[in-house]
Amino acid sequence: MEQSQISKNLNTSQPTNFDWANPLLTDHYQVTMSYAYWNNNRHNDVAVFEAFFRKNPFKGKFTIFAGLDEVTHFIENFKFTDPQIEYLKTVMPQAKPQYFEWLKNLDTSQVIVSGVRDGRLVFPREPLLRLEGPLTILQLLETPVLNLINFASLVCTNASRMKFLVGEGRSCIEFGLRRAQGPNGAMTATKYSYLGGFDGTSNDYAGYLYGIPVVGTHAHSFVMSFESPDEINDHKFLDGVDVLEKAMKFRTELGWEQTELSELYAFVSYACSFPRNFIALVDSYSTLNCGVKNFLSVYLVLYELGYKEGSYGIRLDSGDLIQLSVDSRRMFNETGKRYGYDFSHLKIFASNDINEDRIKECNSKGHEINAFGIGTNLVTCQAQPALGMVYKLVEINGIPKIKLSDEVEKTSLPGKKKILRVYLNEGDIQPSFDILALEDDTLKDNQEIKVWIPFTKQEKTVTPFRIEELTNVLIENGKSILDAVKIQDKRTRCMAEFQAFGGKDRLLDDTNKSDEYQVYLTDSLNTMLNETLNKVKPQ
Amino acid sequence: MEQSQISKNLNTSQPTNFDWANPLLTDHYQVTMSYAYWNNNRHNDVAVFEAFFRKNPFKGKFTIFAGLDEVTHFIENFKFTDPQIEYLKTVMPQAKPQYFEWLKNLDTSQVIVSGVRDGRLVFPREPLLRLEGPLTILQLLETPVLNLINFASLVCTNASRMKFLVGEGRSCIEFGLRRAQGPNGAMTATKYSYLGGFDGTSNDYAGYLYGIPVVGTHAHSFVMSFESPDEINDHKFLDGVDVLEKAMKFRTELGWEQTELSELYAFVSYACSFPRNFIALVDSYSTLNCGVKNFLSVYLVLYELGYKEGSYGIRLDSGDLIQLSVDSRRMFNETGKRYGYDFSHLKIFASNDINEDRIKECNSKGHEINAFGIGTNLVTCQAQPALGMVYKLVEINGIPKIKLSDEVEKTSLPGKKKILRVYLNEGDIQPSFDILALEDDTLKDNQEIKVWIPFTKQEKTVTPFRIEELTNVLIENGKSILDAVKIQDKRTRCMAEFQAFGGKDRLLDDTNKSDEYQVYLTDSLNTMLNETLNKVKPQ
Repeated sequence: MEQSQISKNLNTSQPTNFDWANPLLTDHYQVTMSYAYWNNNRHNDVAVFEAFFRKNPFKGKFTIFAGLDEVTHFIENFKFTDPQIEYLKTVMPQAKPQYFEWLKNLDTSQVIVSGVRDGRLVFPREPLLRLEGPLTILQLLETPVLNLINFASLVCTNASRMKFLVGEGRSCIEFGLRRAQGPNGAMTATKYSYLGGFDGTSNDYAGYLYGIPVVGTHAHSFVMSFESPDEINDHKFLDGVDVLEKAMKFRTELGWEQTELSELYAFVSYACSFPRNFIALVDSYSTLNCGVKNFLSVYLVLYELGYKEGSYGIRLDSGDLIQLSVDSRRMFNETGKRYGYDFSHLKIFASNDINEDRIKECNSKGHEINAFGIGTNLVTCQAQPALGMVYKLVEINGIPKIKLSDEVEKTSLPGKKKILRVYLNEGDIQPSFDILALEDDTLKDNQEIKVWIPFTKQEKTVTPFRIEELTNVLIENGKSILDAVKIQDKRTRCMAEFQAFGGKDRLLDDTNKSDEYQVYLTDSLNTMLNETLNKVKPQ
Repeated sequence: MEQSQISKNLNTSQPTNFDWANPLLTDHYQVTMSYAYWNNNRHNDVAVFEAFFRKNPFKGKFTIFAGLDEVTHFIENFKFTDPQIEYLKTVMPQAKPQYFEWLKNLDTSQVIVSGVRDGRLVFPREPLLRLEGPLTILQLLETPVLNLINFASLVCTNASRMKFLVGEGRSCIEFGLRRAQGPNGAMTATKYSYLGGFDGTSNDYAGYLYGIPVVGTHAHSFVMSFESPDEINDHKFLDGVDVLEKAMKFRTELGWEQTELSELYAFVSYACSFPRNFIALVDSYSTLNCGVKNFLSVYLVLYELGYKEGSYGIRLDSGDLIQLSVDSRRMFNETGKRYGYDFSHLKIFASNDINEDRIKECNSKGHEINAFGIGTNLVTCQAQPALGMVYKLVEINGIPKIKLSDEVEKTSLPGKKKILRVYLNEGDIQPSFDILALEDDTLKDNQEIKVWIPFTKQEKTVTPFRIEELTNVLIENGKSILDAVKIQDKRTRCMAEFQAFGGKDRLLDDTNKSDEYQVYLTDSLNTMLNETLNKVKPQ
């Protein structure tokens, strides 16, 4: 952006197509600290930071890591622009001019990022990303990195919980665009709810950018916009057949003459436009007395014209969705039976304030919903709107560091660490537990080792059959070394891992905490933790 | 974006610097409806839509409208790109080719937007934006418009509640960047918390783009990164004075020899870098036993060197913030007094899980905090993470429309409306109530009129001294007709309006609902409502 553009913005508060993420999108204290380090000639101290969270969200038992694409893109493109540097001069007038020269040339070429691939199941205290490099650049990366992984991981986990509660053979569609925090809040929600198991979205831009399946029918306004049959006079024909006339015939035959005709006109108009994709929103007047009847009157015409292979059904958007789904299904079946048609392919979509509790209620009462459209409660993560991911210094110039806290769970683990996923027995698909180890720890398959429960004196001896190292180098010299993977493929892997972990029965049974997945420390990490704690304990 | 770029994204799931908002960032049903309208030759029907909310958020008594800059920018730049059109062809294979030709040329040149200026106080059911134009384009605008005003208005209102609870003479700083929904979730939160009364932000990019004051000191990692005095050997001098040596002298004089020295080194290093802006984070080891003492030891040196005019103090980030603020203030005062110095200018910042309840607790118990840093609870709007703004068809081809609902408060008001703000008596600064009127209603000052409480049979006769029309044309032929106004000036106006409405005592006393601000309907609007209701009532 040119300086003139900045001034324009300063004077008008107008938005711009601002960069998706950039070095200045950071907390100012990262910049002031960077100056203090530079001024103290410490900016090239060799540091290690780790990003982790302290508790699984939603009082749950797992988290899915997400946002790695965005972090990678940000780190690869990290570079202050000249106007940004000029801006920083104005807010740090006391800083020496040489600092800004140095800042201008700063890049991530000395940064190494190791960590977990996105879409993996992860647990509290695990270093999801471990960044090594010069102290200052790592400090400057903190805020954007957290911004890019915090919500992505949260919404992905939220989506996976809902999807697996809904269960096999039924779909979840993301409807949250209008309720998210602006355009890329919405894009993040769409992309990562898909990674977490959602089946599609209403968001066309996410379809365009990422190939995520899009779903869409019509709104109440479409129904309300129709008034008289004249409005569809020339547009009620399908394959030469007058759909309105035929639908009116069915309506009479079925004794449904009381339905709202303007709704019927709307359905005829829509069906003639989308004869292979006719999902009718049925609650504009009365779901059972009007909407479902009008839908069936129109669909009977389509069916007799041979339209059976597409996507057909209704969307419920208000009222008691469970009972309405059961009653609608009964009406589908009875109407089909009357004419000798199999209407079992008809779909029932439900939307309106769906959340985990509503899904559980549906499951316990029994319902006939094929697909849930979930907006607000998905994208706002109402039950817990922030994950609380943090980014802590764990080592500097080879010296391990911790962040102390009165609350034990808030104390960080020192040292440059890696995550090991342990399978205790031959042939195990389900991992038994994770171990956090120091980078230099060498653990071998089939070797007895001692591990510790963090911040306790409880130890345990185990002999892993197989150890999977979850921490891998992701970015070297500021550039990604990963092969490109489609979000679709990441999603498939994520779903498989969820099942390997024990699936819904283990991961979504929040009432039984006894089988919670454990994360242990190696003996050497535990020793380092205790030594560091003793060293820094307040007097 | 080029087609090749799309394919690249489809194959990799990599992010791009995608547009800030664009026509494809919409719910797919807007596009399918647009096709059905087009296919039915209804796309140029003359429609009116209105955006409004149904309940003030946070169980409160007011809302601040925000996001108008972004809506304007979006509408002014609305145009599908060729690759976007190609994408839509792939997801709507059954649509006729001519439709896509038409879509390619679609723009907002026939759209008129009237509504409320941003930063104004608004109330349930008021049409904040009223869009007039061809049916299809208005339908396509729905989702992005809601996306851009929903969160903006919510976070602005959230911020104003916190700021006014904190009260005069104390500051609120937005710290939410790492917890927001990605980069522009954060940017929206920063911009509109400032409009709602916040005093600054940690977000440098918002400082750069909008000139919002930025604030920043240092993090725990800065303190933890120091180990020995060697690290600051050459960097502990200020105006030729060895700050460490002098600080150590004060530390001994004051009997504070037990403080953690590495923290003292960090403070010396920071103070030498920012001698005019030295706010120390004091809870890395122990706030009162260590942090405050080390801060004072260093600040005494600065003070004696003449550094009094800058910004000096501490940041509390854990523990009982109220008690710690009181104790810290006492230590400031006692230490100043001992040396005969006036330390009343020292500031206490507090952060860590601040929300409305914490602020109220601070107010009721008494505290010494000068500035609150608020992150998570501000940007996630934890207490209510979505405003629920909706966008409803109110008129088509001159015929009034409503959206029915079993819940009365969810039924929309028909017709093309405007908001009138009424001042009952001469000299009133405080508005008495609002009236929703039909566009053609002509209400004059000092004239007796009959108004109705919505959805009741309760009427009332009033004689306004003065009527302010809140609904003004904002966008004509797709272009803004507003003069550019800086966010700073909008903020000033917003603060003045909040006070005019009765300020904190009236607007933030959520327990007393008797003085809730009323929104009435004119007689003609009420008649139209009843007629439309009678016409569309389900049989």
